[in-house]
Amino acid sequence: MPDERPPRIVELAGGVGGARLAHGLQAHLGSRLTVVVNVGDDLERHGLLICPDQDTVLYTLAGIGDAELGWGIAGESFAAAEMLERLGEETWFRLGDRDLATHVRRTNRLRDGARLTEVAGELARSLGVQATILPVTDDALRTELRTDDGWLEFQEYFVHRHQAPEVRDVRFRGAESAIVTSEVVAAIGAADGIVVAPSNPIVSIGPILAVPGLSAAIEGARARGIRVIAVSPIVGGRALRGPADRMLVSLGHESSALGVARLYASWIDAFVLDVQDDALAPEVRALGIEAVVTDTIMVDDAARARLAAVVLDAVWATPV
Amino acid sequence: MPDERPPRIVELAGGVGGARLAHGLQAHLGSRLTVVVNVGDDLERHGLLICPDQDTVLYTLAGIGDAELGWGIAGESFAAAEMLERLGEETWFRLGDRDLATHVRRTNRLRDGARLTEVAGELARSLGVQATILPVTDDALRTELRTDDGWLEFQEYFVHRHQAPEVRDVRFRGAESAIVTSEVVAAIGAADGIVVAPSNPIVSIGPILAVPGLSAAIEGARARGIRVIAVSPIVGGRALRGPADRMLVSLGHESSALGVARLYASWIDAFVLDVQDDALAPEVRALGIEAVVTDTIMVDDAARARLAAVVLDAVWATPV
Repeated sequence: MPDERPPRIVELAGGVGGARLAHGLQAHLGSRLTVVVNVGDDLERHGLLICPDQDTVLYTLAGIGDAELGWGIAGESFAAAEMLERLGEETWFRLGDRDLATHVRRTNRLRDGARLTEVAGELARSLGVQATILPVTDDALRTELRTDDGWLEFQEYFVHRHQAPEVRDVRFRGAESAIVTSEVVAAIGAADGIVVAPSNPIVSIGPILAVPGLSAAIEGARARGIRVIAVSPIVGGRALRGPADRMLVSLGHESSALGVARLYASWIDAFVLDVQDDALAPEVRALGIEAVVTDTIMVDDAARARLAAVVLDAVWATPV
Repeated sequence: MPDERPPRIVELAGGVGGARLAHGLQAHLGSRLTVVVNVGDDLERHGLLICPDQDTVLYTLAGIGDAELGWGIAGESFAAAEMLERLGEETWFRLGDRDLATHVRRTNRLRDGARLTEVAGELARSLGVQATILPVTDDALRTELRTDDGWLEFQEYFVHRHQAPEVRDVRFRGAESAIVTSEVVAAIGAADGIVVAPSNPIVSIGPILAVPGLSAAIEGARARGIRVIAVSPIVGGRALRGPADRMLVSLGHESSALGVARLYASWIDAFVLDVQDDALAPEVRALGIEAVVTDTIMVDDAARARLAAVVLDAVWATPV
């Protein structure tokens, strides 16, 4: 390690998998961790801005997350949602009472003129989070999926339609005019290593990479010798959560750790895959990147910290 | 009565006392009741528009009000308020989870371009209210009170400072440019009688009367023989709730049913006062208005309906 303090690590993260790995990394790194979160899932409900990936990371890092669900707040109640439904609001995106407070606070601060990044920082500090949570951009970028029913907003597909429609195409509305924040550029510029979370490569990591300036920042870091380590979200050919496996196939990729490694090969140094996928390691290496085989399934806090330790080791590993 | 259906009654109302009498009137009149509510107490909290008097009437008429408190929703929870506080929002105006949903819905509809009056109608229909609830105006009118600490917004005085400061003066900011809604004018134009609730004459009924066009509408109704009946909010020299008694005195009036009758004498036909104030009835009559003495304390639903029946009788009484 370069000095006695923990390294500065930037993690690119979607929701549940990203949050769990972030929690493991935070256990080692404390405030030296920066989590750059996807904004493509963000949506407006009830006139409030909701940032599902940011909030999953926020609640998990704050230690108030619902460990069972992987998202939301432990012990959440739904009195407001029931009333909203009674009053005629659509509530298929059902918000808990405490979670609703987050969106009310965020929206109120944004209406006061604060940037999304500032509000993310305030929320994290309020809840005692050690790491820094940064939306990749302050601008509106919305993931949309083309299905046989036409283009759907992400949460319409993900929550309302339970990921049932086949995904034919993906676009990130607003990406062209979005700007990566100076805070994200600075964090990557100061990073000792970059970690890509075990999140959906298409709709969690994809929208982060789609923000102009983000890839250049990573390239810049790599040019000064900073390594990029990605963790597979696919284990034994299946996504641990969500529709990543089906989405990979319907978009012409392979639903396997190798399929994900192929998507990332041009800009990562090492790929962490599960012991169940040990047999794929040679093929990953054949892509010109390192393969690290370990148990990637984060069943509890200890498993999160253990996987994080393996990932941090990979950051410093000398290429063979 | 003019026909077999219940009469059409318009009640001018503030919060708790107005809501309770409205509940009693609704028991007799059903959808033939229109409650015109004060908007001077309205405020923005957390970026949401809150209408305390409207909502007290709404919840009470919907049968979901907290009968003990007189405002808010029975069995309310406060998970969102606790979270809002944790996230740095000021929560001296503490909102229940269900109540918060009302403000989220209202604010969302207003941002969509709906009028406050439309939203009030939607909320009431959603909750199965039979009566029509009409804010006196769609415009912003805010009651402010001058104290030794300067001018205070109404809820700053009422909730945050627990009505402790002495009130030296009252103003209704925005009243000059506010416009009485066409719905209120139509309801008064079609009314068979007008009832003034046992609400604070200064800060509940006062702001309603301050809206240009409202007094003219009442005058127009009286010109066609419609009677106006007011119920005293002061019993035995004291306000049943709130600071009306102290406010009357500090503003140079008398803290008694007679003091209130004097304020209303020029535009009402009859004044309902409590049996405890029987001795004041001759002085009320000396003001040139009728005095009706009855038990005005609405301890339960039956008492509300009974007082409402006396008020409705007074609407039809032939002046002696």
